[in-house]
Amino acid sequence: MRDPLKVSLAQVDYTVNDFDQNAARIEAVIASAGSTDLIVFSELALSGYYPQDLLLEPDFVDRQQVALERVLSASRGCEAHLVLGLVTRHEGIGKPLRNSLALIHRGEVLLTYHKQLLPTYNIFDERRHFEPGGRHAALAHIRGWAVGFLICEDGWNDEELDYAVNPLEDLAEAGAQIVISINASPSNIGKRAQRHRIFGLASQRYGLPIVYVNQVGGNDQLVFDGASFIAAPAGLVFESPRFVESCQTVEFTAEGIGLPGGLPLPELAPALPDCEFYYRQILLGLQDYCRKIGFRSVVIGSSGGIDSALTLALAADALGPENVVAVTMPSRFSSAGSVDDSVVLCERLGVKLFEHPIGALYDTYLGGFDAAFGVPASGLTRENLQARIRGAVLMAYSNHFGHLVLSTGNKSEISVGYATLYGDMCGGLNLIGDLYKTEVFALARWYNEKAGTDVIPRAILEKPPSAELAPDQKDTDSLPPYEVLDEILKLRIEGTYLRPDEFAEASRFVADLDRRDGGELHRRVRLLIARSEFKRKQAAPIIRLRGRAFGTGRQVPLAAHFT
Amino acid sequence: MRDPLKVSLAQVDYTVNDFDQNAARIEAVIASAGSTDLIVFSELALSGYYPQDLLLEPDFVDRQQVALERVLSASRGCEAHLVLGLVTRHEGIGKPLRNSLALIHRGEVLLTYHKQLLPTYNIFDERRHFEPGGRHAALAHIRGWAVGFLICEDGWNDEELDYAVNPLEDLAEAGAQIVISINASPSNIGKRAQRHRIFGLASQRYGLPIVYVNQVGGNDQLVFDGASFIAAPAGLVFESPRFVESCQTVEFTAEGIGLPGGLPLPELAPALPDCEFYYRQILLGLQDYCRKIGFRSVVIGSSGGIDSALTLALAADALGPENVVAVTMPSRFSSAGSVDDSVVLCERLGVKLFEHPIGALYDTYLGGFDAAFGVPASGLTRENLQARIRGAVLMAYSNHFGHLVLSTGNKSEISVGYATLYGDMCGGLNLIGDLYKTEVFALARWYNEKAGTDVIPRAILEKPPSAELAPDQKDTDSLPPYEVLDEILKLRIEGTYLRPDEFAEASRFVADLDRRDGGELHRRVRLLIARSEFKRKQAAPIIRLRGRAFGTGRQVPLAAHFT
Repeated sequence: MRDPLKVSLAQVDYTVNDFDQNAARIEAVIASAGSTDLIVFSELALSGYYPQDLLLEPDFVDRQQVALERVLSASRGCEAHLVLGLVTRHEGIGKPLRNSLALIHRGEVLLTYHKQLLPTYNIFDERRHFEPGGRHAALAHIRGWAVGFLICEDGWNDEELDYAVNPLEDLAEAGAQIVISINASPSNIGKRAQRHRIFGLASQRYGLPIVYVNQVGGNDQLVFDGASFIAAPAGLVFESPRFVESCQTVEFTAEGIGLPGGLPLPELAPALPDCEFYYRQILLGLQDYCRKIGFRSVVIGSSGGIDSALTLALAADALGPENVVAVTMPSRFSSAGSVDDSVVLCERLGVKLFEHPIGALYDTYLGGFDAAFGVPASGLTRENLQARIRGAVLMAYSNHFGHLVLSTGNKSEISVGYATLYGDMCGGLNLIGDLYKTEVFALARWYNEKAGTDVIPRAILEKPPSAELAPDQKDTDSLPPYEVLDEILKLRIEGTYLRPDEFAEASRFVADLDRRDGGELHRRVRLLIARSEFKRKQAAPIIRLRGRAFGTGRQVPLAAHFT
Repeated sequence: MRDPLKVSLAQVDYTVNDFDQNAARIEAVIASAGSTDLIVFSELALSGYYPQDLLLEPDFVDRQQVALERVLSASRGCEAHLVLGLVTRHEGIGKPLRNSLALIHRGEVLLTYHKQLLPTYNIFDERRHFEPGGRHAALAHIRGWAVGFLICEDGWNDEELDYAVNPLEDLAEAGAQIVISINASPSNIGKRAQRHRIFGLASQRYGLPIVYVNQVGGNDQLVFDGASFIAAPAGLVFESPRFVESCQTVEFTAEGIGLPGGLPLPELAPALPDCEFYYRQILLGLQDYCRKIGFRSVVIGSSGGIDSALTLALAADALGPENVVAVTMPSRFSSAGSVDDSVVLCERLGVKLFEHPIGALYDTYLGGFDAAFGVPASGLTRENLQARIRGAVLMAYSNHFGHLVLSTGNKSEISVGYATLYGDMCGGLNLIGDLYKTEVFALARWYNEKAGTDVIPRAILEKPPSAELAPDQKDTDSLPPYEVLDEILKLRIEGTYLRPDEFAEASRFVADLDRRDGGELHRRVRLLIARSEFKRKQAAPIIRLRGRAFGTGRQVPLAAHFT
């Protein structure tokens, strides 16, 4: 006999290692959830995902225990069952910890389940800390429903990932009537569609509804989009909002799935257009990075180019223009537009702009170089000096006024090393470093369309890309056009991590190109990527937006042979 | 019936991803090995250890195949069996590759074995790329001997690591009379003793001799010391030289283990004193980093302090003083000794010293700051500006002359963030970043003793440590004495990765300290470590010397809560 079962999807923004704050947020959700039978929090909810080597600290589980006690205590005052993710100790052979799930009711842990499939690819490294759980179907009966439990990767045993065990199938065979999956699934372009496909197919295959609850918020490079959902055999029936905290309740009855009180579920929101997705992910990533680290304001070098203009616009929207400062640092190689376009841009954004010319410093460096080393500095040296002066000026502003420096390199430049280490690469965070140059243009155009006016001046959008470090310099002097470069980069950097449509397009494009020039340009770009690895090793964290971003998702040696 | 079995331990310096060069080195060993029955190369010999995400490139195994064909071809011309490590494809469920061993004879692969225990701790991350081999005892009969095969971690199932499978025990039970273990075991202080203890105990427990062959050479942060050895039930009987390539042959007979022709084995070399160990590991690390990346010379900022003095001395020994350049960059806060001591030091080392005063640049920066931002730069801003000017001068030298910049921070400073990002942290490699300040002093004193004269001037060894960025500044103005700080750091950064004697000492010291001040200083140091994580994320690679070094061996989030 199945009574209606009300399930609440609690999509919370946790801070890693902040057990007090995480417990407080969970308590607040419990207090305000209203009438419900089961409140579902996400994977490693007590600690936030992912604590990395903080897990190795001997007092980690003890500190988590204090948060768990608070949640147990809160559960005593509520009717509902709670489900949440936490770290548990493992006494047997192997790693001393497990990534676990607890079902809690009225101050008691009714059931503990240990994640069986631990991901070890891309940005995931869970085998470093956790022992996998043994094969086990975790089920509990709640209001007459056989509810099964899974943690994240446990549900991803699809054709691509191909594990020897299929915990979802095991739950279905053990008689689950509904499956609860708790997750910490980082967001990137195409990820939501992938989740819907995999869990949609699984729901259909096993004839079971699956409640998928994700955390939300930015943690270093990673942004979690929330977007918790319910997959039913007939298709997706419910989705929580993206990029915000939420707790919504859905009712399962013998007849189907609806809102409590028999109301129909709201219509599903459509997928976000790519640019809107990037925009919202970057905003949340920056907001949370600042909040969790303790910055309220940022400073950005404004070159009059598209990268810094877009970064300024995104930062102004994320933090409020009053918390964003721009500095224009013209040199003798800067075009007139460098300052003028920065002035117009910052006026339109409402951002304070400082002007700090670098000519005197540049001349002093060149004179000192000649005097100390007996030769005039070479062209490349001069170019890098300008970038390093600008980096030092921004860092001085940051040291004095306490603003976080945002670096402004895009993925195309970072891929081929078209950036100066300790120069324009200075900064505590990079908002657009996972967008290819062609995407930077697209996002800037989208930004203006959204605003209904050219907030980013047309002059910035239309000038040919240039570092302006030498007379009449253009990016295309030393790089292929970005439309060509970006397709090669997509294939070389991301490959099968691309969305299927992007992979097909890039593969076709590069195959054509290779046929035309015998692979010449492709080889040159490959070498540029390899030879600039040392720069990326020392780069600021980049907010991850795409399938494979620079950072922990791509680990390449330096002292290696490259052809 | 067992004939004498001659086994050659081929300890080779491979370059990651350089299949041609690695094959050529293996061919050269085969050609010059002389009379032998079995030549043992190390783990992943064809590709070098560790290729990281280059393993994900679709043509990796195909490119390796060319090297394998060359080795197969070379084996046709020789009597001996060959054993080496390589990557193989895995067709079943799970990761598409395995970390494997091949036994080769006369152009044929007689046996392939797949590593069962894949390490996922400290600097190891093999689950990211490899599927473990199934439980299997790999044995071959060579000249009447039952020879068993293992790969690295397979032999490390001791009380600490505690895996569910024990491949060494399985080999013993399957009747192995001798075990060949191929390894890529990075070197750190205490590691050699640990290897001897673990394999010595295993040899004794199973009554089997174990031939342990390791690679040698530097790969990014990691240095492999070679130090291949043979553990026999009665104890260690043979060891290859450390930090150099070698191929030596040992003969197993029914009576025991000796050199070919019945000669007795040479006496074992004693353990290296700590300082000599650090010295040799750093030299090889720098030499290989330069050679494999393509640098021949380095440039170092010489402050007149102990860190840069030691770095200069080490670099001069590693690359020859003619390939080392020093730059002294005095400011108004520099002591007279800053330049004078650098002059004496560089004369004694035979290193070219340039002087590049930074006063004019410093004044220009301060004037520009005031003019642009309307206030004079704060004290901290001024300190960082000096460090950043020096960094930019060194990078300009590097850009113009093609020398690699070596950064000079020690582990104590890097731990607490007592260093300027994009300033003194500039550089492509750091030689002493895994030595605490007290160890830097010890190594400098040892260096002078070894030389029999004060190559590093007494004035440098005796002055109190100071960044010299403000009037009369001393490190102890803002940090506890290094004797105290370093014990806290050892415990917080390395903990149980310390050598047992160090762990005991640091634990006792810190427990005493905590009792005396209620944990106040300990808490302060913990916060300093946490709050400087963003600097370490952008630091140059540090040659790893100790159990737990900054880099991939210690992975900590930024946007987290720390108390």
